[in-house]
Amino acid sequence: MANWVYKFGGGKADGGTGDKNLLGGKGANLAEMAGIGLPVPPGFTITTEMCTRFYELGETFPDDLTPEVEAGLDHIETITEKRFGAPENPLLVSVRSGARASMPGMMDTVLNLGLNDATVEGLARAAGDERFAWDSYRRFIQMYSDVVLGLDHYLFEDALEIAKEDKGYALDTELTAEDLKALVRRYQEIVAEAQGDPFPQDPQQQLWGGIRAVFASWNTERAKVYRRLNDIPHDWGTAVNVQAMVFGNMGDRSATGVAFTRDPSTGENATYGEFLINAQGEDVVAGIRTPQYLTKAGKDAAGADKPSMEEAMPEVYGELAKVFDLLESHYRDMQDIEFTVEEGTLWLLQTRTGKRTASAALKIAVDMAADGIISEEEAVCRIDPKALDQLLHPTLDPDAKRDVIATGLPASPGAAAGVIAFTADEAERRASLGEDVLLVRIETSPEDIHGMHAATGILTARGGMTSHAAVVARGMGRPCVSGAGTLQVDRDAKTMTVGGRTFKEGELLTIDGGTGEVMAGEVATVQPKLAGDFATLMGWADAHRRMKVRTNAETPAECRTAREFGAEGIGLCRTEHMFFDAGRITSVREMILAEDEKGRRAALEKLRPEQRGDFEQIFRVMAGLPVTIRLLDPPLHEFMPQDDADFAEVASASGLAVDKLKRRAAELHEFNPMLGHRGCRLGITYPEIYEMQARAIFEAALTVSAEDEAVLPEIMVPLVMSPGELATIRKLIEKAAEEVFAEMGSRIDYLVGTMIELPRAALRANDIASHAEFFSFGTNDLTQTTLGISRDDAGRFLGQYVDKGLLPRDPFVSIDEAGVGELVELAAERGRATNPDIKLGICGEHGGDPASIAFCEKTGLAYVSCSPYRVPIARLAAAQAALRAQR
Amino acid sequence: MANWVYKFGGGKADGGTGDKNLLGGKGANLAEMAGIGLPVPPGFTITTEMCTRFYELGETFPDDLTPEVEAGLDHIETITEKRFGAPENPLLVSVRSGARASMPGMMDTVLNLGLNDATVEGLARAAGDERFAWDSYRRFIQMYSDVVLGLDHYLFEDALEIAKEDKGYALDTELTAEDLKALVRRYQEIVAEAQGDPFPQDPQQQLWGGIRAVFASWNTERAKVYRRLNDIPHDWGTAVNVQAMVFGNMGDRSATGVAFTRDPSTGENATYGEFLINAQGEDVVAGIRTPQYLTKAGKDAAGADKPSMEEAMPEVYGELAKVFDLLESHYRDMQDIEFTVEEGTLWLLQTRTGKRTASAALKIAVDMAADGIISEEEAVCRIDPKALDQLLHPTLDPDAKRDVIATGLPASPGAAAGVIAFTADEAERRASLGEDVLLVRIETSPEDIHGMHAATGILTARGGMTSHAAVVARGMGRPCVSGAGTLQVDRDAKTMTVGGRTFKEGELLTIDGGTGEVMAGEVATVQPKLAGDFATLMGWADAHRRMKVRTNAETPAECRTAREFGAEGIGLCRTEHMFFDAGRITSVREMILAEDEKGRRAALEKLRPEQRGDFEQIFRVMAGLPVTIRLLDPPLHEFMPQDDADFAEVASASGLAVDKLKRRAAELHEFNPMLGHRGCRLGITYPEIYEMQARAIFEAALTVSAEDEAVLPEIMVPLVMSPGELATIRKLIEKAAEEVFAEMGSRIDYLVGTMIELPRAALRANDIASHAEFFSFGTNDLTQTTLGISRDDAGRFLGQYVDKGLLPRDPFVSIDEAGVGELVELAAERGRATNPDIKLGICGEHGGDPASIAFCEKTGLAYVSCSPYRVPIARLAAAQAALRAQR
Repeated sequence: MANWVYKFGGGKADGGTGDKNLLGGKGANLAEMAGIGLPVPPGFTITTEMCTRFYELGETFPDDLTPEVEAGLDHIETITEKRFGAPENPLLVSVRSGARASMPGMMDTVLNLGLNDATVEGLARAAGDERFAWDSYRRFIQMYSDVVLGLDHYLFEDALEIAKEDKGYALDTELTAEDLKALVRRYQEIVAEAQGDPFPQDPQQQLWGGIRAVFASWNTERAKVYRRLNDIPHDWGTAVNVQAMVFGNMGDRSATGVAFTRDPSTGENATYGEFLINAQGEDVVAGIRTPQYLTKAGKDAAGADKPSMEEAMPEVYGELAKVFDLLESHYRDMQDIEFTVEEGTLWLLQTRTGKRTASAALKIAVDMAADGIISEEEAVCRIDPKALDQLLHPTLDPDAKRDVIATGLPASPGAAAGVIAFTADEAERRASLGEDVLLVRIETSPEDIHGMHAATGILTARGGMTSHAAVVARGMGRPCVSGAGTLQVDRDAKTMTVGGRTFKEGELLTIDGGTGEVMAGEVATVQPKLAGDFATLMGWADAHRRMKVRTNAETPAECRTAREFGAEGIGLCRTEHMFFDAGRITSVREMILAEDEKGRRAALEKLRPEQRGDFEQIFRVMAGLPVTIRLLDPPLHEFMPQDDADFAEVASASGLAVDKLKRRAAELHEFNPMLGHRGCRLGITYPEIYEMQARAIFEAALTVSAEDEAVLPEIMVPLVMSPGELATIRKLIEKAAEEVFAEMGSRIDYLVGTMIELPRAALRANDIASHAEFFSFGTNDLTQTTLGISRDDAGRFLGQYVDKGLLPRDPFVSIDEAGVGELVELAAERGRATNPDIKLGICGEHGGDPASIAFCEKTGLAYVSCSPYRVPIARLAAAQAALRAQR
Repeated sequence: MANWVYKFGGGKADGGTGDKNLLGGKGANLAEMAGIGLPVPPGFTITTEMCTRFYELGETFPDDLTPEVEAGLDHIETITEKRFGAPENPLLVSVRSGARASMPGMMDTVLNLGLNDATVEGLARAAGDERFAWDSYRRFIQMYSDVVLGLDHYLFEDALEIAKEDKGYALDTELTAEDLKALVRRYQEIVAEAQGDPFPQDPQQQLWGGIRAVFASWNTERAKVYRRLNDIPHDWGTAVNVQAMVFGNMGDRSATGVAFTRDPSTGENATYGEFLINAQGEDVVAGIRTPQYLTKAGKDAAGADKPSMEEAMPEVYGELAKVFDLLESHYRDMQDIEFTVEEGTLWLLQTRTGKRTASAALKIAVDMAADGIISEEEAVCRIDPKALDQLLHPTLDPDAKRDVIATGLPASPGAAAGVIAFTADEAERRASLGEDVLLVRIETSPEDIHGMHAATGILTARGGMTSHAAVVARGMGRPCVSGAGTLQVDRDAKTMTVGGRTFKEGELLTIDGGTGEVMAGEVATVQPKLAGDFATLMGWADAHRRMKVRTNAETPAECRTAREFGAEGIGLCRTEHMFFDAGRITSVREMILAEDEKGRRAALEKLRPEQRGDFEQIFRVMAGLPVTIRLLDPPLHEFMPQDDADFAEVASASGLAVDKLKRRAAELHEFNPMLGHRGCRLGITYPEIYEMQARAIFEAALTVSAEDEAVLPEIMVPLVMSPGELATIRKLIEKAAEEVFAEMGSRIDYLVGTMIELPRAALRANDIASHAEFFSFGTNDLTQTTLGISRDDAGRFLGQYVDKGLLPRDPFVSIDEAGVGELVELAAERGRATNPDIKLGICGEHGGDPASIAFCEKTGLAYVSCSPYRVPIARLAAAQAALRAQR
């Protein structure tokens, strides 16, 4: 027979921290505190398994629960020496929810349960305070009617207001005991009218009603939504905690407060907390009275005048300070504690690991490791890698005022303020005048690169987390808010309208790429600090990391940033962005428009010195580290003009008629460019393009190598689906290499490998591996093809899919392990079977996502590659994954 | 040690038919004939393995070949009692290629080898014919110089012409022995001038030169191209046959001829052949002299005047007739035989299985089975399923004149002639007037369906074998030529220009969907006959078939056609085509343009009775057979207007402003519609659409069922990638079913299943199978996603890929077993693991392709589904696959 009820209090407990799944977080911690002898009001926890059973039985309780709850109540009565429902010295209890994961404010609570017309008098006598007793009774009726009886809470709020108005009172506290007695009678009339039955006087009935209501609150709509948003499974269920009430509002020797054992904002090792004398917990939260500081130091630092608890209640504070030390060393982490002092006696109501800012998390982890409380490995695992994002980008000053006009997707972290520019050219122009510019577009295309680069931030009305704007912005480290759907951007009128307000080119906007908020005007920002604790912790992380961390970068500036952030090579250097440069796009178009191979070769010869120059710069910045260069990937139509003005410009530059240009552009049009004539398919049909790129790479490599810098080029072939493609292009690369080596009289080592980004490539990895020294998993495209989802078009349904649980997470953010993951594992296994030394890495956006990095560790990849600003995140996530794998 | 040389002749042989891989087709059949005692000029075959070795050794021969060739030559000398190179009665030999698969005209041959200035005199004496001997020498020098010495053949042709002109001759035959002696001397001068060395006089040197040249001809560019186009592996190699020469041109008792043991055009069981007295084989082919018939019956039927061989050479003919019977019963198939009569002696030079038309193949197979020569199973396996295509569609009269103006892809078989219409509306208008119409478009879209249906044939300038036009045309059984790239279609001017000629609307064109030819004017056609041998053979096929054959059809007419062709159900009934009907598209657009669910439901309610009507008709036609209906699949933007005129029309019909319509169309635009908001994603975001369709299906099913017809609906959910999607939509379908059952007071059994058309669906088939009673493999989309190839855009590179061997075949025609095939197998295995009774089928275009059908049999699928006109092909291919699997 299942044990539904776990008791705690009186110096012992049936459970402890290890029973979190069964008892919920709150119940487990109450039991743990009780077990180590801390003063916890006695009580019992009904397990989460009962929640499951409750729903299985159609929201009823099994018979065997009753005796266990009765025994639990006996336990409380014995310790408190009070009796539930007794007219003298009655026992009152609270009934609270407590799930495995914190769901703040989502589920219900009933306090002061056990009060009725008889026990209220007994409470008054026991406390020697009639007003306190009747106020408690009033609060109980209101809470119980709302939570258990399902009556509208405004009925009671109205009655309270009327009572105050009748007397001419401003504050609740002005109500006297007599006023409260009358109000309780009014409340009872309201209940009787609303539900036909009087307010329940039987404490047992009250108790079971409360338990039922808390279990039922697990399945309210808002709780379900919260769980969806926070990845909490619906079948976990909540526990219910029934606990003796203690009162911080029984006079001046009573108090209630909250404390953090360290400063949750800075991480400083000093108790941080607030308390109120003669108050209940909700008064602290309600903010009607200004709380006092716990410590004298805190009070002095804040320049507050009211005494600290250390001064006002030195004895209890001394006791409390010892509890803080005990709890922190017991839990080995900073604790967030709730306590009540009832007539000079300290009671602990809750302890849990305290939430903290990223910089506080860093400081606490490093301090605790330095003090020997936790190991370096534990310190490394304590930091949420995603939280580092806050530290790597300028962030909005939390104290600054914000005039939020729209909210989009937090596409690339960091805050940016600047004047609006609606075109890339305008952005570049204003930036060259020294202005901070925010590029605002319906959506961006590769032609906007120069404007995105010139801008301090990017804002788009359309596109998801992996839209062009988002991907490029993350790569450049530019803050970006994408898909702010309420914006109406009128490029011609040079205006942006949102919520009835119109903004013109040149007006100031601020975006927060960490939250997706768009604000009018300029909001002040604060700069990140990467030294100190950050550097210490990253050093520890690197010591425990197995996988290398590379970066996806294609300009010398990006490469430099990434190297500063600790990148150990380039995992993906896209070459197409180099083709969009204003000085080159003409030659690129000349190549596309050429009638034959000879014409294409002539145009490519003009591009070769330019590409060589690009590669030379990158090889210099990345000296000593591997640089993976991907040959041209996008379909050629991406390089064609996009609108009439562009066509006219190209026509006059090329001497070709506009209609001929348009015809060629139409010929190149594709229905599904993602699945079109791109990647190595270009290298098969136009080998001269890859030939030019290969020559440029080898020429650059030999030039920089001659400067005594170590150059480690790795040439990557995109979109391979068959071994023959890679074999053909490998031969072409080798031929170009030998020609350049002969011409320049020197040689260099290089690798040739391929992206694995199509399901067929994963399936044929065994054959493909015989022509490859490395595989780099292009999980962006592999996700698109495996799931059949175009990331540019997914916005219309992907959100709903995640909300409805049809996909566990956005597969473009965290790797879809059940689908894409299986293909990656299979390709790794088959590739190694043919070529045991093959180097495996990942260069999709997933390379910067901690969950995906853990998957890569499990699959034994050699490296992950991500955008420069994600490099520290990846370093930490990789270290954590390695440490977890060791366990 | 390898045995490089296999001898034959003199009533025995080292090898036989079973050694085709080693000896090539010709060598194996010569050995076989010699082995069963037929008169074959003695000779030997150098194996295909020597070809491989020859290339391994850098085009040289191993030392151990020499003694074997010498022994082979001894063997010939012994039997013929002639000596190679002897001045008296010299042995002459032919050196011919012979690969495993026939490669007609691709490789080289040398005849009369062994002649020199001395042996030519011996030959003249032995034959008693000086002119014959010198003419043979002349031919030998010309052929050897071309094939072995690599000299330009025009050098010799010019010299021959000059010799004739000098003498005032018109024909070669006018040259006298003296003329030919002079010409041989001139030829020898030409050789000496061109290569610096005299023409080789040593017969041994001649022989080795010939052998080397034939092996080398395996790797000429044209041979390589031929192998690529015919799926012949490059590593098979060719054999070389060295054989004693016999001469059909040694006087009036000599002759040469070719014969088929049955009529290759009709299949009639009567010898069919031609011969020439006093001639060489090349004279028959050259067509200078009109050949005579072999049989008197043949002569009489043709009304020819020259005597038949049966009359002219009764004895030899009697011998030959026995050989025909012997060879046909020995090989148990119709034979194609070459023979020579040398001075009254019959020699067989070749026998092989004769090529035949589809109807001849049917008749021969059925006749032979009826005569007990072969079994019914063998008869079934004798017919190439693809050849049935010729029989199922009207075909061009082979005797009619053709004015071919362009060639496109043979997208849907059959011939069609009609007047040009450039729009679907015009096609419909003209068809309603009783005209045969050819719809000519740059490319077709779903909006053209009514015009395609009204047309007798479809011609497009763009699009591949699986373009919209091609797929729909095959489904409708309309002949179609797609992607005729040289056509310039001007819809506004209503003209089509090609090769400088302009065709107007209303002018006559003919297309041949079997060859891709487009012809000016009307070319006569002949109608197919499906009874008789066809019906007999299909009956045998059905008796041996394991898989069911269903059809992809969506109109009652298509369903009827398919049922007549033997379809055993519908495997794919697309519902979207019903949405394009002129009477419904307005409601469809109203639904798309609706602001909310209520508006969508109102529009859908208008569509429901229409859909119900569609389904009722289909259920009636398919009574007693399963009907798989796929819920709406394409993205909604496909239903929006395509051009300004359409927009204006919709605006006036809907009362919405054109710019609002355009804005909505722009919102719906997708970058990669193939990977967009389509399939069950629509059912997730707009459940009301699928709800309407499910209700319409159940209402129709109950209505037709009430008419005492058996209705077996199978509802198919498209584009599923996760089990949750199918579970959600299954619930919706079940709810609709129960509602309709309750309303109509009756129930019916039905199945719910899903397409497996995304790699992730294949990978997650185990989970998905718990919600599905069937899987239907949508291998079109599965190919697109697995290979990352948009079939609409593949035209630019897929041809090159197949040509270069990067993909073995067009993966949209024959299933890509190495990629897509593995996913299908894996999904079948995983699906069965969860649900052992799951029904598995295929409904992609591959369902009508014999190679893919064989794969489906291997994978154990329950059925294949294909377009109506492919049903017989699939029935036969499925039977063959089952029979092969039994072996």
